[in-house]
Amino acid sequence: MSGTTQDDYTDRYSRRVRGMTTSEIRALFSVASRPEVVSLAGGSPYIAALPLDAVGEMLGRLASDHGATSLQYGIGQGTVELRERICEVMSLSGIEGASPDDVVVTVGGQQALDLIARVFLDPGDVVLAEGPTYVGALGVFQAAQAQVRHVAMDAEGLIPAALSQALADCGGRAKFLYTIPTYQNPAGVTLSEARREEVLDICSRHGLLVVEDDPYGMLSFEGDAPRPLRARRREGVFYLSTFSKTFAPGLRVGWVLAPHAVREKLVMASEASILCPSAFAQGAVTQYLSTMPWREQIKVYREVYRERRDALLSALDDLMPGGTTWTNPAGGLFVWATLPEGLDSKAMMPRAIAARVAYVPGTGFYADGTGTTNMRLNFSFSAPDRLREGVRRLAGVMEQELAMRAVFGAVAEPRRRRGSAAADAPGPDLA
Amino acid sequence: MSGTTQDDYTDRYSRRVRGMTTSEIRALFSVASRPEVVSLAGGSPYIAALPLDAVGEMLGRLASDHGATSLQYGIGQGTVELRERICEVMSLSGIEGASPDDVVVTVGGQQALDLIARVFLDPGDVVLAEGPTYVGALGVFQAAQAQVRHVAMDAEGLIPAALSQALADCGGRAKFLYTIPTYQNPAGVTLSEARREEVLDICSRHGLLVVEDDPYGMLSFEGDAPRPLRARRREGVFYLSTFSKTFAPGLRVGWVLAPHAVREKLVMASEASILCPSAFAQGAVTQYLSTMPWREQIKVYREVYRERRDALLSALDDLMPGGTTWTNPAGGLFVWATLPEGLDSKAMMPRAIAARVAYVPGTGFYADGTGTTNMRLNFSFSAPDRLREGVRRLAGVMEQELAMRAVFGAVAEPRRRRGSAAADAPGPDLA
Repeated sequence: MSGTTQDDYTDRYSRRVRGMTTSEIRALFSVASRPEVVSLAGGSPYIAALPLDAVGEMLGRLASDHGATSLQYGIGQGTVELRERICEVMSLSGIEGASPDDVVVTVGGQQALDLIARVFLDPGDVVLAEGPTYVGALGVFQAAQAQVRHVAMDAEGLIPAALSQALADCGGRAKFLYTIPTYQNPAGVTLSEARREEVLDICSRHGLLVVEDDPYGMLSFEGDAPRPLRARRREGVFYLSTFSKTFAPGLRVGWVLAPHAVREKLVMASEASILCPSAFAQGAVTQYLSTMPWREQIKVYREVYRERRDALLSALDDLMPGGTTWTNPAGGLFVWATLPEGLDSKAMMPRAIAARVAYVPGTGFYADGTGTTNMRLNFSFSAPDRLREGVRRLAGVMEQELAMRAVFGAVAEPRRRRGSAAADAPGPDLA
Repeated sequence: MSGTTQDDYTDRYSRRVRGMTTSEIRALFSVASRPEVVSLAGGSPYIAALPLDAVGEMLGRLASDHGATSLQYGIGQGTVELRERICEVMSLSGIEGASPDDVVVTVGGQQALDLIARVFLDPGDVVLAEGPTYVGALGVFQAAQAQVRHVAMDAEGLIPAALSQALADCGGRAKFLYTIPTYQNPAGVTLSEARREEVLDICSRHGLLVVEDDPYGMLSFEGDAPRPLRARRREGVFYLSTFSKTFAPGLRVGWVLAPHAVREKLVMASEASILCPSAFAQGAVTQYLSTMPWREQIKVYREVYRERRDALLSALDDLMPGGTTWTNPAGGLFVWATLPEGLDSKAMMPRAIAARVAYVPGTGFYADGTGTTNMRLNFSFSAPDRLREGVRRLAGVMEQELAMRAVFGAVAEPRRRRGSAAADAPGPDLA
């Protein structure tokens, strides 16, 4: 290379990725996928519950009988057939009268979020989001060089007064509120009926856009979920969802329902990013929704996950050291635990992995380094007895930490993390 | 919305999308997909040449026998199995010894390009690219708020002296050279052997990164293509390709082979954008490469496309008005035509559509409004007799335009376009 430093790319990176690094924590997760480790860390649905033979037959026909279109390029917005089915799915959640023309099909819910960030966020813009929030959203906002300001939650979800305060603090500069109102990831809490109206009113009053992420709304364990925000208000609300939890994440099909004026920008942003979503994956979901008993399948998922949630909660009840608290999710995939004072979930990770149990440290779900005393526990992927065994191992590690602390006194206050929050979270595959 | 203008999003958009609009030209393309229109506009491969029954059987088994992984989340970088196969594919093109660890699987070649833009481009950065160049690359660079400076080509591809001049003109500020050296889209020309070395030398001397896009290299009609730039130099060269032209675009599987130091940034950028590529699509390509006669299939594509290129070229020879010129591609999908003086390919589009023939006006392939006298003609999708009929219709429209011009004199000089170049190009589906 004639003496240049072309093998060193450091000075060439864009500003948006300069701060991106993977942490030592992330390296630990690669160990967590070993079979001897009970992983409470991932967010994978329990795909084995699908009728795989029937799905295989359906996908085979999609290629053999319709390959000339299903294996070809498609349009950037996604097929009209799938967008029509998506409107039907949304109507089951209470979103009535959505037009297929306002739906953009995406590569999972992640790309929906990324498109919204591309269309609305400039460097330095402020985004409001629950604290804690989805780690993938933090990755998107970081890549957009936006600032995330967290809004506190309690057992009823986002606290309206905290939202008003956050808005006041940033002087109206916030671009949007990113929220997962139902069975929140990672907190496992749900925004109550009354608060849904209150949050929408605050946002309307301040002209604040709402980005509602709803991947889990259909995975309710106790009656139906409260209606989405988008079912209550149409203007100013973007609704995102995915088939990753109701069908299969391996196809990567999600969508955004956008106010009409914005839809064209989203499509152009998507074409610049991926040209078009997979025609085959879209055909697969369309066929699945048209020809297979998908609502029954969701009931199967609900029952499997309810049983697992119960197993996890009762194991926590039985085994966790005093001073530990956790949320009680009415749906979804996750429980959020708060450790007894003095424990640091990130510092404890290597010892947990050594004890053959994995979780995601709470710091991964905050942009500001908080969350050191929290962890996210997944219950969708592992069988009830595995969940209990995982909690047993985790409790053992925590007891040891507490004993150490009792002997040696308080350890140094954990330093605030640097670099990206996403660095403390596992890759998408970890289950 | 309590009197706010929340239904008007104009003031809220990010700077990167404010200039993005679709043009009236783009609306015309929606008509072009009607069966009575001969479309020379798209870039679709001829999927009907695939053994669809066998592909269907393979995909069916992928879900029924391996669904627990193929329908699940995967890792952001892509499966190691596919990355190994990709290294084998690249070795057939002359890229020896690439490590699967340095390959990142992407959602088609488009996402590969987008990831590179995300990792390297800040607003205002300069990118060098052939003029004309791939319309999807212009969309990526526009979204990254980069400036594109075009480098002229001739029948032997990129002109080295023009590259040196462009580098001098921008005072070394260029971030990289984006190039499609082989069977270029849209120009249909190929960088000669001698110039490959020369271009690499210039880039090395100036410490300029090279982004080599090679979707068409295997679609040669006359002997093998020259070895890729990446086969000649390892450091400072990013190599992008896709299975869209050698297998099927509907699966959206591409890749980038990156210098090792950069690979981690690309993976993180991809996770922020799409979380992970489709496990099912990756499994499909892996199975296709492992169990099916894919090299024989490429020979089939080559033969079909060679016959169609010959049909297009001989129709152009026989039917085009004097003063029209065009390139003579030795592979790939496209011919680039230059109209007789005074004709404007964009202004002519509505009349061409009325005459039931479509093409892409040359302006879509430039960032700076040039290309008004050019058009891109695709020969991969339509049968030889359709191609000839399309050229007949096109020639008729051009003759009429020339006659009008002879009667009424020169029309006003076409104005330089505003807004995005991509606005003058069709969506990805148009064939």
